Amino acid sequence: MNPNHLSPHDGQDQDYGRRRVVIENVTPEVEKGEFPIKREAGDLVVVEADIFVDGHDTIASVLLYKKEGASSWKEAPMELVQNDTWRASFRVEELGRYRYTLMGWVDHFATWYKGFVKKYEAGQDVSSEMLIGAKMIMDTLQRVSGADANRLETCAYMLTSDTFPLEAKIGTALSEELVALMQGYQERRFATVYPIELPVIVDRKKARFSAWYEMFPRSVTPRQASHGTFKDVEGVLPYIQEMGFDVLYLPPIHPIGKTKRKGRNGDVVCQPDDPGSPWAIGSEEGGHKAVHPELGTLEDFRALVARAKDFGIEIALDIAYQCSPDHPYVKEHPEWFRVRPDGGIQYAENPPKRYEDIVPFDFECKQWPALWEELASIVLFWIEQGVRIFRVDNPHTKPFRFWQWLIPRFKEAHPDVLFLSEAHTRPKIMYRLAKVGFCQSYTYFPWKIAKWELEQYFTELTKTQAVEFFRPSLWTNTPDILTEYLQTGGRPAFMIRLILAAMLGSNYGVYGPAFELMERLPRAKGSEEYLDSEKYEIRTWDLEGHDSLRGSIAQLNRIRGENPALQGVGSLTFHPTEHESILCFSKRTPDRSNIVVVVVNLDPFQRHWTYVNLNLDELGIGADETYEAFDTLSGEGYVWRGAWNYVELDPAWRPAHILVLKRHTGPLGTGQ
Amino acid sequence: MNPNHLSPHDGQDQDYGRRRVVIENVTPEVEKGEFPIKREAGDLVVVEADIFVDGHDTIASVLLYKKEGASSWKEAPMELVQNDTWRASFRVEELGRYRYTLMGWVDHFATWYKGFVKKYEAGQDVSSEMLIGAKMIMDTLQRVSGADANRLETCAYMLTSDTFPLEAKIGTALSEELVALMQGYQERRFATVYPIELPVIVDRKKARFSAWYEMFPRSVTPRQASHGTFKDVEGVLPYIQEMGFDVLYLPPIHPIGKTKRKGRNGDVVCQPDDPGSPWAIGSEEGGHKAVHPELGTLEDFRALVARAKDFGIEIALDIAYQCSPDHPYVKEHPEWFRVRPDGGIQYAENPPKRYEDIVPFDFECKQWPALWEELASIVLFWIEQGVRIFRVDNPHTKPFRFWQWLIPRFKEAHPDVLFLSEAHTRPKIMYRLAKVGFCQSYTYFPWKIAKWELEQYFTELTKTQAVEFFRPSLWTNTPDILTEYLQTGGRPAFMIRLILAAMLGSNYGVYGPAFELMERLPRAKGSEEYLDSEKYEIRTWDLEGHDSLRGSIAQLNRIRGENPALQGVGSLTFHPTEHESILCFSKRTPDRSNIVVVVVNLDPFQRHWTYVNLNLDELGIGADETYEAFDTLSGEGYVWRGAWNYVELDPAWRPAHILVLKRHTGPLGTGQ
Repeated sequence: MNPNHLSPHDGQDQDYGRRRVVIENVTPEVEKGEFPIKREAGDLVVVEADIFVDGHDTIASVLLYKKEGASSWKEAPMELVQNDTWRASFRVEELGRYRYTLMGWVDHFATWYKGFVKKYEAGQDVSSEMLIGAKMIMDTLQRVSGADANRLETCAYMLTSDTFPLEAKIGTALSEELVALMQGYQERRFATVYPIELPVIVDRKKARFSAWYEMFPRSVTPRQASHGTFKDVEGVLPYIQEMGFDVLYLPPIHPIGKTKRKGRNGDVVCQPDDPGSPWAIGSEEGGHKAVHPELGTLEDFRALVARAKDFGIEIALDIAYQCSPDHPYVKEHPEWFRVRPDGGIQYAENPPKRYEDIVPFDFECKQWPALWEELASIVLFWIEQGVRIFRVDNPHTKPFRFWQWLIPRFKEAHPDVLFLSEAHTRPKIMYRLAKVGFCQSYTYFPWKIAKWELEQYFTELTKTQAVEFFRPSLWTNTPDILTEYLQTGGRPAFMIRLILAAMLGSNYGVYGPAFELMERLPRAKGSEEYLDSEKYEIRTWDLEGHDSLRGSIAQLNRIRGENPALQGVGSLTFHPTEHESILCFSKRTPDRSNIVVVVVNLDPFQRHWTYVNLNLDELGIGADETYEAFDTLSGEGYVWRGAWNYVELDPAWRPAHILVLKRHTGPLGTGQ
Repeated sequence: MNPNHLSPHDGQDQDYGRRRVVIENVTPEVEKGEFPIKREAGDLVVVEADIFVDGHDTIASVLLYKKEGASSWKEAPMELVQNDTWRASFRVEELGRYRYTLMGWVDHFATWYKGFVKKYEAGQDVSSEMLIGAKMIMDTLQRVSGADANRLETCAYMLTSDTFPLEAKIGTALSEELVALMQGYQERRFATVYPIELPVIVDRKKARFSAWYEMFPRSVTPRQASHGTFKDVEGVLPYIQEMGFDVLYLPPIHPIGKTKRKGRNGDVVCQPDDPGSPWAIGSEEGGHKAVHPELGTLEDFRALVARAKDFGIEIALDIAYQCSPDHPYVKEHPEWFRVRPDGGIQYAENPPKRYEDIVPFDFECKQWPALWEELASIVLFWIEQGVRIFRVDNPHTKPFRFWQWLIPRFKEAHPDVLFLSEAHTRPKIMYRLAKVGFCQSYTYFPWKIAKWELEQYFTELTKTQAVEFFRPSLWTNTPDILTEYLQTGGRPAFMIRLILAAMLGSNYGVYGPAFELMERLPRAKGSEEYLDSEKYEIRTWDLEGHDSLRGSIAQLNRIRGENPALQGVGSLTFHPTEHESILCFSKRTPDRSNIVVVVVNLDPFQRHWTYVNLNLDELGIGADETYEAFDTLSGEGYVWRGAWNYVELDPAWRPAHILVLKRHTGPLGTGQ
């Protein structure tokens, strides 16, 4: 034997060996608590764990939870689900961080009681058992006062005294009152506490349920070549409100660099009147904390934020941590950039592509703490102007640790602040960004076209651990993404993608007015860039154009608002159909009082019919039950019965059903 | 902003923010390294992890590993598998504990090289790039001496000097020699080290590949009612060796208590000459460190251990941490037991069942450290007598933390010691015991009878994380388990279960001679207890009986020895068949040089035929390839082609095929 080996309790508390209960396999849990799970105010957090003990003893356990910083834990008793898995839940009401953990212990009185009942029922002599029970009651009494103490004392006396008939004594031992009393005063001796306090970040509901509209403010102008202003944007707020969007996201609003400015369609040669890309941030007029003079003043911006609020719209700003070569930082803090051998600052590149109008920060620089602080101060500046939502440009080209530091930093003081990760990159990187703090994340939705792709991808996002930390944001299009499907599928393609984004996603967005006006010419064949992209020039749009999708958008946003089932993604369920172009999925509220079934023809060119096979178990509908499927898009109702139902969808005039299921006599799930 | 919030590097190293590489999702990894993975000497440990960085930089990573206690790490470079997953492996040669972890960093020179190639191929001006590369080479030079330094210096000179033609300079920049040289001297600046050192426990091969024979030594006697001795056991070693077993496991060999001793068939009334249960350990003749006098002396035992070794057989002892009421501990250490109100020691029970011939230890007693030490000293005592394998009785009724302390304690000084967990309880408890240290574990095999049960259970054991820590031991029968299948299925049932145990399991065992002599009368209808169980009486067995299965056992153990594929479980693959009673599975070596396909008719009563559908991809056989299936049981060969093959099995004379697959011209997988 190695004499240097630890004795049993070296370095452990003196009861280490007596803590027999094991707690493992806790869910939800992201990387053993390294990252928080995400919830929204009012949500229930359902926690499960495997909890067990050696031998045959009965155990008890509680879920412990608290708002971070609270001095004491609240408790919810855990209940056995099956096979050593226990469950409890708590509700998160306030924004901010919560923590939860678990505690389990051997419930010796419950063990005694269970044995007593079995022995009694087996006709065994239980006199000795009664004395053991009485001893446990007497031990417990030391922690009890008042009426309960009197009742417990009476029980103990009954069990030990010879003056009572055996039946009365046994009756006392078996009484539920005694069990309940003892349960309330458990000593929890030698309890095991799960060693990790698992974090929850609680955001406001908008983190989960939001409809975004992206628009270049400089294009909000009646006259070609004139520059739209914040004041002009105020003028289109009714238009955006009518469509039902609640977030208006503006690309960067800062002064735009002149050096190496890109011309129209990204031309490396710039004409004198070309406005440049808003993402080439910074000029002698200022950097990330300044406003592009042609858009107006900082005061105008604050006025826009306030006016938008009147329309139920929040302004989201773009955080693009990069500079034009003219950004004041470049002169003031050359130590934050990489220098080329010729003494110049290294521009951005992804060889062989060069982005000479942009210089990236060098996050490996020695002065990284100062850089981080300055970058954080930009967010703080705009928070102080009233902004609470930030769309972060290319977060995957900045270190994960930076975000892991930055985002919690702001959410601590401003728990209503939301950050959307604009990363279209490899899956593990997108997930990591969500883990380190982003509240919403762009997805591969634009490129998921086929039925199997949509089913596979959205099953992954909603039925794996990703659902705990990754909130998908589904965009029909962006200034960078005009998919081939939209380029070629005509109006039906726009309608289909709009319906999918708004129904599959609880967070979704469109880049308009290009979307509702169905702008669909690419810069070149095979390109996803828009021809005459607003990234590089001012466009004027005929918002009142009669072919606009604004009416359909308004209808879809209204349907989303009216149906709580559509305001999350966790309940998403795909249902088989017999046609490869017809996708069917449902969402429901936890109590199934609201169930929405969406059936979409993914083929923008052909009418198709098929049978859908609804998973009635999932929907809580009886196999032979008759139910009403009310199409909120068309206003028509169908009476359906059983799992198999016929659908026929013509993309030209009806690409989808959005069916709210109802029993004839009342909403589903209410037991009517 | 909360002024108390940490600044970026509070509490972190000064390069915290510059360590950009992320390492996550490491496999194998059990509970983030709380428990070791298990391997056997000579095994390859294949490690994978998701490793990535922000942006477009090229990264490099290494697997670090060492024997525990070694002063320095060894390295294996990781290679990208796909989708940000990297892989490397190392071989564990010595018994004991190893550790491994990972390190990743941005490889700036490789990033430069990748960009250089792309820019050059795109026809861009690369003169500035050459200066950047030269600077990196010069920085590297500070860490290099000798010939390599000269070569690097030459390269740097080539890149910077104006005296060479451009083609020569570019040739230098593109040269593979330069890349290789720079690779060898990477600075690994701002490397990320995975924060956990993951443990591996390396056991000897017997932990994975063993054939156990359980036998009551007192029954090794020619005359009914006389008591077998260690000397007698020596006499049957040739018999056991002939059958091919390499572990002989003896139930407890200690003095047996007299108080409340159980009679035959577990009767609570004991006759004067009843020998009692060996698990009622301890009498005035001694406790866990003493030998039952009727078996012989401690010297006799040591002689048996030595003699068995001559036959290639290891003696495994039973560690049953419980006492008869007569055990010396009860008098010497009453503080280790629970006392009843009447002053007596609490006997074992699982209400309403009582085991009054047994008293359990109270692991919640205040003196638990002394109890743990004493219990550990029992194992040490038997290690000192030459025992290296212990079968632990009912480990699930002792605290998990006790085992987690005890087992590593012994394996540190005696890394060849093995512990088998005899827990037939709920799945999570069985897994936990394996996690905390048991080297082999009893399984639910005895009750997995139907095809779907076997497929489901053994898929779980071999294709989930369980395979990292849980080594299954498959028993056909035990003194406690005579399944209904064996009771009713006749000789075919015994053959089928034997084949399944020996082929599905790489560790398996039988309780004999009851097994090979096909003892199959239960104590009562519906009971799994043997009638006239050896647990309570001495039995004599006619080992030479002509109906014995000893020949078949010998054949199966020979097949196991000859086919490396059968000496593990990780490669187990089930193949579909078209009959619900015909099970088909295969095992193979990693290089597929040995492939064994087993087809078993699970129905002991009826002949069945069907087609099996071999997963040829898994076996490395071409779809149209002709191959030989040699039945090592019957000695017959079949020529098969394609996935679908006909089988017909009559349980009475041939319940199974054990097919070794061979190409006509040589073993499979050798590329012949």
